[in-house]
Amino acid sequence: MAELDRVIHEPVRLRVMACLDTLEPKDEVDFVYLRDLLEVTDGNLGAHLQKLEEAGYISVKKRFVGRKPKTLISATRKGRAAFGEHVEGLRRIIEGGEAGKGS
Amino acid sequence: MAELDRVIHEPVRLRVMACLDTLEPKDEVDFVYLRDLLEVTDGNLGAHLQKLEEAGYISVKKRFVGRKPKTLISATRKGRAAFGEHVEGLRRIIEGGEAGKGS
Repeated sequence: MAELDRVIHEPVRLRVMACLDTLEPKDEVDFVYLRDLLEVTDGNLGAHLQKLEEAGYISVKKRFVGRKPKTLISATRKGRAAFGEHVEGLRRIIEGGEAGKGS
Repeated sequence: MAELDRVIHEPVRLRVMACLDTLEPKDEVDFVYLRDLLEVTDGNLGAHLQKLEEAGYISVKKRFVGRKPKTLISATRKGRAAFGEHVEGLRRIIEGGEAGKGS
């Protein structure tokens, strides 16, 4: 059976990866922007980002912009590849009508 | 934010619903067939079917076919509708590139 990546599959993390995947390779998105886009709490988003970071799917950097600290997030090459495979797996399930069976 | 249905989103349950959704309205699928298709254990599939049944998304009937008891599963109208909405939500996320934002 084609596997879905449980790290990515969780709804908030799926949205995070979908958002990051649309960016150019070196572009980053601000934590606050992501939090407001996804309508989640700081704590919730933070916990999900940690899981994605632990899997090596995203890079999280803290940087001062003027006197303001910002948390900037981007997808890693590994993360983009994993997201692409996950989307393929989802497509097979929802379009294939064969429950995601690999063969 | 467009909501994903967490009852359906779980990978095994997503596959179960995708499989049942391909059937004609009155058709049923056998528990053993589904278990083998999804490559899960009896216990695992049973637990996921119970969640789907509690949500009113599937109907589970036990029936004797000859001397053999069979467990037959079908999607309810409510289950098909919920699955359809869920698939739409997933599509918005993976194709829209806007993290599933509703507006």
